[in-house]
Amino acid sequence: MSTKGRGTFISFEGGDGAGKSTQIQLLKERLSRTGREVVTTREPGGSPGAEEIRKLLVVGDKDRWSPMTEALLMVAARRDHLERVILPALDRGAVVITDRFADSTMAYQGIAGALGRDAAAALHKVAIGDHDPDLSIILDVPVEKGLARAGDRAGVETRFESKGADFQNRVRDAFLEIARSEPSRCVVIDATGEIAETADAVWCAVTSRIPDL
Amino acid sequence: MSTKGRGTFISFEGGDGAGKSTQIQLLKERLSRTGREVVTTREPGGSPGAEEIRKLLVVGDKDRWSPMTEALLMVAARRDHLERVILPALDRGAVVITDRFADSTMAYQGIAGALGRDAAAALHKVAIGDHDPDLSIILDVPVEKGLARAGDRAGVETRFESKGADFQNRVRDAFLEIARSEPSRCVVIDATGEIAETADAVWCAVTSRIPDL
Repeated sequence: MSTKGRGTFISFEGGDGAGKSTQIQLLKERLSRTGREVVTTREPGGSPGAEEIRKLLVVGDKDRWSPMTEALLMVAARRDHLERVILPALDRGAVVITDRFADSTMAYQGIAGALGRDAAAALHKVAIGDHDPDLSIILDVPVEKGLARAGDRAGVETRFESKGADFQNRVRDAFLEIARSEPSRCVVIDATGEIAETADAVWCAVTSRIPDL
Repeated sequence: MSTKGRGTFISFEGGDGAGKSTQIQLLKERLSRTGREVVTTREPGGSPGAEEIRKLLVVGDKDRWSPMTEALLMVAARRDHLERVILPALDRGAVVITDRFADSTMAYQGIAGALGRDAAAALHKVAIGDHDPDLSIILDVPVEKGLARAGDRAGVETRFESKGADFQNRVRDAFLEIARSEPSRCVVIDATGEIAETADAVWCAVTSRIPDL
């Protein structure tokens, strides 16, 4: 657990179309009924500076950046997001729920991408240190289902989705590997079923893993 | 010396108004007469991607980015610049002359700024590795003289200059410290005098340090 304030830090991870934003919204509604302040945010982005960096990351050709440059930009955005939004909210005692955090860099760039685990881990250590979430919820769906869901969304932010199903399968395996390696922080939830069913599993994970919520 | 191609990699470093761009232009003219391909470039920026990142760095309030975020953006731009411009040119056998490289991050952010030497060095090691210049020329001028020269330039890229004379003095000391710690790579040249005088000192450093030029 990280050296943070009185708050609770939760990340949602998983491939495109896993249902992260829907589940985050439902968790926020449930948590808000407990009277706690709930802050929802997302990566890359989440703070004004990080959103500027996000624009460089999500638009354009899939080979626009090399693996190392992409990871440095991701981590720069994360650092801004952490310092300007997440840590201040945790200091206030809020529950912070972020749509993606460091596991996404390890999965997409470190394990599935060409950056490599060692470089991803070293970069994380230098720039983010021990600011890990208290709980990371990995929403797991078969890649074809996820891509079909993601394909229903309009928009220009397709740089990662355009990398194809093979890449997405490596990403899925990478998230499962991360979860196996850090069982005290990570929970994998099957997100293939109905939205309400997944939401119940998320709620169960949150209340059992974070008893003082 | 770095693991590069057949080329020669030279960086110019120093505070604002030290005369780097003037001296780079003069060195380029002299080197071109030898028949070698000469590529001049600059940081932050120097490649299309890095120029996009540069826009985030040089415009805006001086506290827009935290020390770590600023350093990550600098290093992201440097990595792009290195991979897309510098290394391909060195592979062709060119002389690459860059206006600023990694010593600027160590001086401005690592030593004079709040990032700290250790974080700056760790970030450099992860992201840039052993791609150091063959020769780094540090143009040294008293801060007041440098700021007066820099003040004559128009433009909106004032984010670093606006940090004030105290900060610029720490930057000057930082460059001198770097030069003392890496004497085989770095040469300090007094750049207070006439342009032609400094240009002769630069040429002497280049031809004596890089005999196979």
